[in-house]
Amino acid sequence: MAGASGYAGGEILRLLLAHPQIEVGTVTASSTVGERLGSIHPHLVPLADRVIAETTPETLSGHELVFLALPHGHSAALAGQLPESVVVVDCGADFRLESAQAWTTFYDTPYAGSWPYGMPELPTGAGSRQRDRLAGATRIAVPGCYPTAVSLALAPGFAAGLLEPDDVVVVAASGTSGAGKSLKPHLLGAEVMGSMSPYGVGGGHRHTPEIEQNLSRAAGETVQVSFTPTLAPMPRGILATCTARLRPGTDVTRVRAAWVAAYGDEAFVHVLPEGSWPATGAVTGSNHVQLQVAVDDRLGRVVVVAAVDNLTKGTAGAAVQCANLALGLDETLGLPVAGVAP
Amino acid sequence: MAGASGYAGGEILRLLLAHPQIEVGTVTASSTVGERLGSIHPHLVPLADRVIAETTPETLSGHELVFLALPHGHSAALAGQLPESVVVVDCGADFRLESAQAWTTFYDTPYAGSWPYGMPELPTGAGSRQRDRLAGATRIAVPGCYPTAVSLALAPGFAAGLLEPDDVVVVAASGTSGAGKSLKPHLLGAEVMGSMSPYGVGGGHRHTPEIEQNLSRAAGETVQVSFTPTLAPMPRGILATCTARLRPGTDVTRVRAAWVAAYGDEAFVHVLPEGSWPATGAVTGSNHVQLQVAVDDRLGRVVVVAAVDNLTKGTAGAAVQCANLALGLDETLGLPVAGVAP
Amino acid sequence: MAGASGYAGGEILRLLLAHPQIEVGTVTASSTVGERLGSIHPHLVPLADRVIAETTPETLSGHELVFLALPHGHSAALAGQLPESVVVVDCGADFRLESAQAWTTFYDTPYAGSWPYGMPELPTGAGSRQRDRLAGATRIAVPGCYPTAVSLALAPGFAAGLLEPDDVVVVAASGTSGAGKSLKPHLLGAEVMGSMSPYGVGGGHRHTPEIEQNLSRAAGETVQVSFTPTLAPMPRGILATCTARLRPGTDVTRVRAAWVAAYGDEAFVHVLPEGSWPATGAVTGSNHVQLQVAVDDRLGRVVVVAAVDNLTKGTAGAAVQCANLALGLDETLGLPVAGVAP
Amino acid sequence: MAGASGYAGGEILRLLLAHPQIEVGTVTASSTVGERLGSIHPHLVPLADRVIAETTPETLSGHELVFLALPHGHSAALAGQLPESVVVVDCGADFRLESAQAWTTFYDTPYAGSWPYGMPELPTGAGSRQRDRLAGATRIAVPGCYPTAVSLALAPGFAAGLLEPDDVVVVAASGTSGAGKSLKPHLLGAEVMGSMSPYGVGGGHRHTPEIEQNLSRAAGETVQVSFTPTLAPMPRGILATCTARLRPGTDVTRVRAAWVAAYGDEAFVHVLPEGSWPATGAVTGSNHVQLQVAVDDRLGRVVVVAAVDNLTKGTAGAAVQCANLALGLDETLGLPVAGVAP
Repeated sequence: MAGASGYAGGEILRLLLAHPQIEVGTVTASSTVGERLGSIHPHLVPLADRVIAETTPETLSGHELVFLALPHGHSAALAGQLPESVVVVDCGADFRLESAQAWTTFYDTPYAGSWPYGMPELPTGAGSRQRDRLAGATRIAVPGCYPTAVSLALAPGFAAGLLEPDDVVVVAASGTSGAGKSLKPHLLGAEVMGSMSPYGVGGGHRHTPEIEQNLSRAAGETVQVSFTPTLAPMPRGILATCTARLRPGTDVTRVRAAWVAAYGDEAFVHVLPEGSWPATGAVTGSNHVQLQVAVDDRLGRVVVVAAVDNLTKGTAGAAVQCANLALGLDETLGLPVAGVAP
Repeated sequence: MAGASGYAGGEILRLLLAHPQIEVGTVTASSTVGERLGSIHPHLVPLADRVIAETTPETLSGHELVFLALPHGHSAALAGQLPESVVVVDCGADFRLESAQAWTTFYDTPYAGSWPYGMPELPTGAGSRQRDRLAGATRIAVPGCYPTAVSLALAPGFAAGLLEPDDVVVVAASGTSGAGKSLKPHLLGAEVMGSMSPYGVGGGHRHTPEIEQNLSRAAGETVQVSFTPTLAPMPRGILATCTARLRPGTDVTRVRAAWVAAYGDEAFVHVLPEGSWPATGAVTGSNHVQLQVAVDDRLGRVVVVAAVDNLTKGTAGAAVQCANLALGLDETLGLPVAGVAP
Repeated sequence: MAGASGYAGGEILRLLLAHPQIEVGTVTASSTVGERLGSIHPHLVPLADRVIAETTPETLSGHELVFLALPHGHSAALAGQLPESVVVVDCGADFRLESAQAWTTFYDTPYAGSWPYGMPELPTGAGSRQRDRLAGATRIAVPGCYPTAVSLALAPGFAAGLLEPDDVVVVAASGTSGAGKSLKPHLLGAEVMGSMSPYGVGGGHRHTPEIEQNLSRAAGETVQVSFTPTLAPMPRGILATCTARLRPGTDVTRVRAAWVAAYGDEAFVHVLPEGSWPATGAVTGSNHVQLQVAVDDRLGRVVVVAAVDNLTKGTAGAAVQCANLALGLDETLGLPVAGVAP
Repeated sequence: MAGASGYAGGEILRLLLAHPQIEVGTVTASSTVGERLGSIHPHLVPLADRVIAETTPETLSGHELVFLALPHGHSAALAGQLPESVVVVDCGADFRLESAQAWTTFYDTPYAGSWPYGMPELPTGAGSRQRDRLAGATRIAVPGCYPTAVSLALAPGFAAGLLEPDDVVVVAASGTSGAGKSLKPHLLGAEVMGSMSPYGVGGGHRHTPEIEQNLSRAAGETVQVSFTPTLAPMPRGILATCTARLRPGTDVTRVRAAWVAAYGDEAFVHVLPEGSWPATGAVTGSNHVQLQVAVDDRLGRVVVVAAVDNLTKGTAGAAVQCANLALGLDETLGLPVAGVAP
């Protein structure tokens, strides 16, 4: 576990503590080397007395499975020094994008390439799922938190050919752990509580190309998305409101069924019964995505709202789910199936 | 002041306590008649010992100015029994809509008609503002909170002919005081804190026709809006993310200027300097609207984000602002010009 | 599981979903009979389609283990109709107090008697623990949430003879789930967020006699407590600040060691390393209590601060822990050992 | 206004914007020199375009009144270079303590002396108030936020001779703005929301000697206090639960009357009607203190709970109130008399 002192690293460790087949090995970080894990993550009681080692190929060697939760731009060099046979699951952005050009437009480090994309439930055309690419993989790129919510929300409509590819608007609210532990004034508790604000408005958020990559794959054509993220006064959770125009002639009474069918067999993605709407509080700490679909037939638009915990299914839960697939374990093993509410 | 025990009523009283020309007269309500105001609104210290009277034409008579903050459907009968010469400012929905059909579609009580609409800053075509209809009026309908944020966010673009009327998508987050004091399980603190959820998805929210009425007036043609409201874990504030497609051929470098020009002379509506984004925390308790405008030129869309306090500029502040206009006072008199932050 | 629709009932179900040896049987309640559990507790995804039955002896019969989470005054009649051989774990107050007089002073229903008190870690004099009374018991009274935090915080000092019995002052803050789902205006999200307030000041809180019973047992003499509970703007968690006067002549350098020794072997009660202080956020959703002890030697007082999740270790976690003991299982089985943070 | 970029400085500016007799002059700071005030305090709309100057004797000269809101240890040097005739109101700790020894024990900079202490309502023995020392003063030390709440809560009981001086226990919860804008991990929003934690336990908090100084003055003898501050998940507000032992023989039926009498004529300190309890939400943004008094006659203790906004009456409101007194203005001029609730 490299990058253990951040929120993603802490969440991976939390999940592994309940995992029946994976044991926590060496725990590494950079600026907190030598500290007790209990002083960084006091909630991880059974690991409190572990001492944080330095993130190097040497400290990570000898493990069958390595999770990376590093700032973007740091995974490639490290992964390159780990044996091919080791399963490496990267929570960073480095290997998510297939397009070097998209990477270069949105990120400030050299393009590192792409790894199998760790969103098992994503419809990828012709009835297949992304899951098929993950079984037995030894390198996996865990999706971003917003792309998890938005892609799972809209992909069934694109896969079913119901949605226009050029009129997608998404506004999503995230809890502040999504911004990590960086010490910035606008992330102070006094600033955050009681206040909502947008950021990255106008298409500039780095998760935009990742969302478009996923939806384009589901649609079989290029999908473009207007994406506005906002910061909400809560520690965890993403609520993504995703709307797209229905293709002319769509039978609006059959729209919702496309989503129900897409996720009927999925353990972690749930279309709620009609009349119920997702709330981020219901998925806190769990690996679930909750969805609801509505059609605004006056305007010919579908509105899909998805709730997900940005740290669990949005990051660490997906990482463990992918590790299960890579290791040939039951995909759901060790993952929390109930949220912590209220 | 009729309807004093709710949040809107309490906020009107808070503002009037600081108003140099308006004195609080009789304070009335229905279920709390006979109680000390201090037991309902402990924050209104100077009025703590006022006893709440019953809302009747008699208790309200003899005042030059009457504010109504009643459940919808109750204003018409009461207002009809108040003299024409009394200035009546209604915070309810009853007289906001000009279309009887729109009212009937979205509300469950008979259509009561329409009064001059209390949004002074709204561009209403040909360079005029809604303010012109309010000076000296004796009946005024205060706008809804969401329509305040959304209409002021998008109207300049429609008034300047920059935006397509049929591709408007709005997602707005509101603090829970927007839902009033009704005792519903999903409004309990334990449910609300740490959670976001949508409601009225698919076009059903009652504020939709009011938003469309305002934007259509600014545009000079029919505007339709996909509107999704969400509930955010904060007591006050609305953050509205409003997006519309630019007309083909629009010079994107000139878009923002339309908003700057529209509100350059306004006391309460502010386009922030480029690079700054509004936060609801900055307008808490104040009568300001803060806006920012961005163009996503890849998609040809404009994104306008507005922050407003739903109880102040979104309700009670607008009511006092309109009362000032009706009484011939300085429009800004007694209104808070600084938010309470952090 | 009787009383499934409240917060305590929901938390018990959450824990049982992860329990390897206990399976959820019939789920009952009163006002929500016939509803899907998913509409009441959307976070309990695997149980979403369970239909709530009515709480009667018949619906509960045939189970080896029954949890009661009922309003106080309802447990006795129901438990009396369940076979003696069934293990009944009651989360209500009905059977916690050994003194009929204390019950009558603080509660408004007839005294029902007392059951073995479900706080395994409580020192009960002469080196014994309350745990000894729980193995194989078929009736167990789960402690209240405040008494859990306060008793575990102060009992080691009384058991070691370090503290004066007549100068104990406790101020505790609780998240609002502690007040349950009752629809009261002061529990609305808009009222709760951004605000703290006390209640039950002056000794009137019902948890006072329970705290005194526990501390008196540890001390071997009568202990009296000044207890003030406050409501904090968070969904879960109790932070109890507990202070008592040291007996004259106490060696202040040895005080902390009494707590370290008392809980050194306990799985769920932890004295943090010196310099670290407990935070409720670190125990959210877990069965842990985190403590720290300080001596104010200027004043000759000890200050112990305890953090606990009121719904987990404070209620449902203790219930499952006691059920484990009653059934002869490992006491820690199925209980969460990591908090959900941040 | 020196130190304008912090929370105290921002709050002073907010209050001055509504003050009819004081105009905001030069606005200075250190690390933010040259920035627009709007980028630091976006809620202060009318001052948004002010540019922050450097804090030097030169930039501050030429003003009749200077507020200092600097880190402790910085006020003495600056104040020494301002003319004696200028009214200097210091929000820092530097001049609050009369005892050089107490200063040295709790602070890490040289003792600077003491100025008239800016708590007008404090009973100071023999029927007098601290207010008498402030009229016409040219140097005033504004109290700390906790000492404001605690001293006003307990002083009437000491002034009336009702309370034992050696058994005072105070536990107070503060919103996180009390910790200022310092970028520390435990102050991040994700850490703070949903969590409460103590700090400075065991008598080490710097506000302890200030509280003891005030209560000793009221009592006419040395009072010692066990003080534990805690951090609560809210931006503003202090709730102080203050308890002391009644002197033997005290008539408990007359205790509350001592508080009612002490503050009957005060504009900003209010003993609530019996049965009502203070909430910090009711004083947000206002200059009020709300109190309630209860006697736990079983234990012979009085419990006084006080709610105050740490930034308003706890800092900036007191500063303006003192400036009013110093300048010979009405003490209440320009100060908010209603809280912003909900």
